[in-house]
This record gives sequence, structure tokens and C-alpha cells, in this order.
Amino acid sequence: MWFEEIHDDFFKQGLRVEEKLVEVESEYQKIEVYRSREFGKLLVIDGHGMLCERDEFIYHEMMAHVPICTHRDPKRVLIIGGGDGGVAKEVLRHGDIEVDMVEIDREVVRISQEYFPEIGDWENPRLNLTIGDGIEFVKRADSGSYDIVLVDSTDPEGPAEGLFNREFYAHVFRILKDDGMVVAQGESWWIDMPLHKEIMGVIGQFFKIVMPYRFEMYSYPGCNWNFILGSKRYHPTADIILQRADLIDGLRYYNSDIHKASFILPNYVKKELGQLYKW
Amino acid sequence: MWFEEIHDDFFKQGLRVEEKLVEVESEYQKIEVYRSREFGKLLVIDGHGMLCERDEFIYHEMMAHVPICTHRDPKRVLIIGGGDGGVAKEVLRHGDIEVDMVEIDREVVRISQEYFPEIGDWENPRLNLTIGDGIEFVKRADSGSYDIVLVDSTDPEGPAEGLFNREFYAHVFRILKDDGMVVAQGESWWIDMPLHKEIMGVIGQFFKIVMPYRFEMYSYPGCNWNFILGSKRYHPTADIILQRADLIDGLRYYNSDIHKASFILPNYVKKELGQLYKW
Repeated sequence: MWFEEIHDDFFKQGLRVEEKLVEVESEYQKIEVYRSREFGKLLVIDGHGMLCERDEFIYHEMMAHVPICTHRDPKRVLIIGGGDGGVAKEVLRHGDIEVDMVEIDREVVRISQEYFPEIGDWENPRLNLTIGDGIEFVKRADSGSYDIVLVDSTDPEGPAEGLFNREFYAHVFRILKDDGMVVAQGESWWIDMPLHKEIMGVIGQFFKIVMPYRFEMYSYPGCNWNFILGSKRYHPTADIILQRADLIDGLRYYNSDIHKASFILPNYVKKELGQLYKW
Repeated sequence: MWFEEIHDDFFKQGLRVEEKLVEVESEYQKIEVYRSREFGKLLVIDGHGMLCERDEFIYHEMMAHVPICTHRDPKRVLIIGGGDGGVAKEVLRHGDIEVDMVEIDREVVRISQEYFPEIGDWENPRLNLTIGDGIEFVKRADSGSYDIVLVDSTDPEGPAEGLFNREFYAHVFRILKDDGMVVAQGESWWIDMPLHKEIMGVIGQFFKIVMPYRFEMYSYPGCNWNFILGSKRYHPTADIILQRADLIDGLRYYNSDIHKASFILPNYVKKELGQLYKW
């Protein structure tokens, strides 16, 4: 039995799975959990692999620690989406940060808590979870109230569609402090460069610095994926705080050298991005 | 119609193909060429994707330019395998290097010349092609006769099996000069860490410096793959010759920053490799 994903009818990827543990139709999407021998349990939303136990740490560490180790003094972090709890857990490793998390789908949280309890840090008193619409949340949030916003969303279809447009990022920019930054799931150079460029362009309408950085994710098609960092002031490779980056306990992927290396672009990507790359 | 590859019964990857252009049973292996819309033509040997036109440049540039831009003064390069001609073409961009290439399978060369003519540089007078067994070739080659050896092989099954053992590397070490280096196809951390560690260990029995470096290959399972560099003297990140690395014309992937970034290891890899990593 295979969990297979076909991207745009040209690239197919499959993980061997042994058993489907649960399938739920929530108000927003279909959520499935599979068990596999090689990859541990696998979370699938609307047919797309979201994470598996074996490599979730790469995505979650890279989304959280890169901006946190770039920002001088991050105190308040907002996570949009991220209902599996993994990004929040990584942010919460930094003891002086308060996290607001806004996940639209209560069922994603419930299933993650039940099937992937070790990925989250749900009982942490510095985590404030809201079940609600992230788009509405950023509209209503106070200006200049966050240091970092992390957009941990699915692809731009279904409930996440409104997280990829200009209006959403106008509010993200507004609710960030003068030295704030955003990191968003930025798709893949290889599998979908046009969509990657679109997100770069939207974030670039607001932020002074806009740079993609790479990570691996073996349950995503093409296995190489990007985050996009938008920053009002700090530069992710010039301003990295080495001391903070290398003193985080328990990390399996991230370190200060990985942080810097992840921003390096191959020639063909530099050419494709052109002026969309703002550094 | 899909070209599908299943790795060890747990990971599957497929590229949409439109047509099989040729299928040949050579003396050594089955060689196929497919045409695809998104990836260009695809070369398949014994059921494994070897290269596709869309991303062959990543593999070939990374195997060639990393050692060449680390070595002080490379003049003679030996390529074992590499019958598609792509690594040789990249080496030959450096105008003062002579290349000996030893490919066991005449049919790989013939089919590459016919279906992938732009990947090779076959008419270059600095390329000396031998059709023969690379293992025998290194046994007979003079000691201290090469600056760089590139082992551009398939996986350790079939004709390439003998390119992964101690005896082969003893000769590679012997035929290299006192400041020589080798680069070998080093498999994947994610898909087959035990095999990666095995090759690291074999090369480490001879070379002072043994370091893996990463590249992407979208026709290989897991898409993230490694080369392993063994060096008698020069260090690939400390001794990189920036001027040479950034003045090579026409490259689509490699640059001096990519060179350095490709050697950076995630924490879990450092832990796995332990003493096998010699830097």
C-alpha cells in the first residue's frame, strides 16, 4: 500500500504505508493519518503529505530558528496555521518568547494531539492557541504588536488560499514592529517556480529584505522546498546571532552554518528571481 | 505513462514520460531513453534514472568544479564511468586540463552521443576516451599520474560493484599525486545512510580528508544526493580558489558560495558520520 502524490501531472512521489489510522472530513478539509515503517506516521491533508515523523524536525526547526536567530530580541511570535504544533514547539524552545497560534481547523489540532503528541508542546503556558481564521486574526490584530509572524500554511488551495495575497501581507506588515519579520512556506524552485516567484513578489511589495531559504522535506514532491523570509530591518545572514543559534539544545537539523548555507542560491535560481530577490 | 523507480520498497518516485525512444540490452546492462515534457529526455540504466536533460547540469557541475576549484593546479583528470559525457564536458571548461575517461559500456556512450549530444563535449581534443574496465585501468595506471579522479558510477550493483571497495580505492590513492583528490558518487543520507557511510569508510582508509557534499538530482529517489570528496592535501572549503570558481562561464548551478554551502552538515548527519567525517 502506497501513499502517492502527483504534482501537476508530471511528478509523482510515494511512501510505502502499512495502514490508514484515521480519516476525517473536517469542516475545511480531509485529514488522514497513515502508519509507515520507514517514515513513522504520516499526516495527509486533502491528499497532500504534510509531515511524517521521520523528518518533521527539518521543516519545523528551519521555519522557527532562522528568524528567531536573526531578530535581536524576539518576544512575541504569531503562527498562522501550524496546527500540528511543530513550529510552535520549536519557537517555545526559546524561553522568553510568547506564541500566539491561529489554526483554522480544530480537527488538525485534535488529530495531531492524538497521533503526533511528541511533535507539539501543547501544555506550554507560553502558547496561546486560537481556533479561528488567520486572515481575520491579522486584520484585527494591533499594529506593531509582533516581532515575528510565521505563516505555516498548506498550498494555496482550500482554506489557505487567502494566505498568499497582497491584502493578507499588508496586515502582516502592519502588525509587525519596525524591526519585524515574516517567514512563509514558499513552495519549490523545481516543482513550481512560478508560484515561488509569486509569493516572493507579494512579500516584496512590503518588506525591504525578501530572501528564500531551502530545506528538505521527504514527504513533499521534489523533496527540496523553500521558506521565504521578509524582513523590515535585520538581514538573515549578516545579522545572525551565532551564540543563540548554536546554543539551542536538542536540535537535529539546524545550526548556524546550516542557517547561512540555506540562503545560498544556485545560478539558475538567481537568474529566475532577478529583482524579486531583495537582500 | 510514468517512469517509476522504487527504492528498497519504501520510497517511490515517478516522472511523467511521453514515449520510450530506445531500449537496448548492452553487454552489461539495459539502457533506455524516454522523452518527457517537463524533464526533457531521460536516460535510464537497469531501471534507475541516471539523468534528465532538465537537471543534469547540477550533478555534472558539482562533480567537476568542486575538486577543480579546490586543487592548486590540476592538469590531469581521470573519469571512471561517466559515459554520458557530462562530467567530462564540465572538466574540459578548464582550458589547461587533459581528461582520460574510462567507460565500460560502449553502448552508453553511443546512446548518449545520439540522444544527448549537447551534454557531452566529445570532439574536444583534450578528451581521451577509453572503452574498458575502470577497475583494470586503475590497476595498470602509473603511480602519481593524476591530479583528480572522478568516480561517476551507477549504484553498487552490476558493473559498478567493484568501484565501491577497498582494493579499488587503494589504486585510486596510488595513481594520484601527493596532492591529489578523488570525488565519488556518494549516495543519499536519507535514502541509504548505511551505504553512504560505507563509502565514506572505504575512502577514509586512504585519504586524510573525507567529506561529503550535497547536490540535488530530481531524477534520483529523494532528490538530495551526495558526492564524497577524498583529498590528500587540499581542504575543499579552506583552500577553495574563489577567483577560479566564480570565473567559469556558462554555469547554471555552481558558484563559490554553493561550493562552500554544499559541505555544511545538518546535526543529524554529523552525529551519524562521527569519525567517518575527516576534515
